[in-house]
Amino acid sequence: MSDRGLLIVLSGPSGVGKGTVRKAIFESDDNEFEYSISMTTRPMRKGEVEGVDYYFRTREEFEALIEAGEMLEYAEYVGNYYGTPLSYVQKTLDQGKDVFLEIEVQGARQVKEKVPDGVFIFLTPPDLHELKNRIVNRGTDAMEIIEERMKVAREEIEMMALYDYAVVNDEVPKAVERIKDIIASEHFRVDRVIGKYIKMLEEM
Amino acid sequence: MSDRGLLIVLSGPSGVGKGTVRKAIFESDDNEFEYSISMTTRPMRKGEVEGVDYYFRTREEFEALIEAGEMLEYAEYVGNYYGTPLSYVQKTLDQGKDVFLEIEVQGARQVKEKVPDGVFIFLTPPDLHELKNRIVNRGTDAMEIIEERMKVAREEIEMMALYDYAVVNDEVPKAVERIKDIIASEHFRVDRVIGKYIKMLEEM
Repeated sequence: MSDRGLLIVLSGPSGVGKGTVRKAIFESDDNEFEYSISMTTRPMRKGEVEGVDYYFRTREEFEALIEAGEMLEYAEYVGNYYGTPLSYVQKTLDQGKDVFLEIEVQGARQVKEKVPDGVFIFLTPPDLHELKNRIVNRGTDAMEIIEERMKVAREEIEMMALYDYAVVNDEVPKAVERIKDIIASEHFRVDRVIGKYIKMLEEM
Repeated sequence: MSDRGLLIVLSGPSGVGKGTVRKAIFESDDNEFEYSISMTTRPMRKGEVEGVDYYFRTREEFEALIEAGEMLEYAEYVGNYYGTPLSYVQKTLDQGKDVFLEIEVQGARQVKEKVPDGVFIFLTPPDLHELKNRIVNRGTDAMEIIEERMKVAREEIEMMALYDYAVVNDEVPKAVERIKDIIASEHFRVDRVIGKYIKMLEEM
């Protein structure tokens, strides 16, 4: 319905299974999203292909892109940069195609600032859903373990507040269906389609 | 996911096929919505059942409910009142069940004021979607017919602005699927579920 593609951002706490869910979405039927390939400064490994697994760049090239505002999001892990180049994302959205990013929560926060009308989906661990059982109903745990669990849960809930949707990753096929429903219905949001109608009227 | 039910409002211009789509939704699989029965002051017809087709009330009773703020929405057509009693809707939402209303645009406007966090779905005629073809590409039409079409289209677009979603009723089964996707994904909206998590944490 909407003429411009949607930027879909899937994120969540580390270990929640983002990569598995993303893979299952891209292997499922009726997926019409473009997957954005990340850029990195880490060395290419055997079997990896430039522009398929990653865009491999030198540290200098990567930093030049950061300074030019050409990275939608980036982070540094163990001495290497990883990030999403802006140009591909913009070009694909302009073509009316949806772009799917699966990134860490730090990256999602950067994208939220630059593209607030993206669709931000937070994948939650099933034990957050069953928070009470997990934290309270085990009388045998030491107090510090209970407190640590509460701290983690609190941080996850705080992260979640930045997102549009929270999807529980209890079973991968269910999480995939939920995410695909969300993307389908976001295309029908009035604030995404009404501009097209108004423009049509104005042009006549 | 969310503990409270959703109030789903399906509306759209008259003649768009709201009733047909609503019926198809209730006859489809996996529909878990409660349908809100309207109240009216018109006389009961042969074969109609109180509390099934309508709640039949006198004019005095209906006006007393209006004055007491007990009508979620109402309108008067050819001398009779039609409306949605608030009590049933609130009770059902509190039980965690979704309530589905299929009403005229005037009624939807009243509901929007009272329940802003409802899910408002505007059913659009397929010819609004193909606005340009309909209005411009027929060189033979008289100017006043073209202007009338533009006026109708403009009014429909203005109505649409009050809604969350715009769904084209090109084919009834497709419209039904879109609406069911929307309802499913609205249950995952962070602003609907995060309160539950925060409450869980606070209770511990």
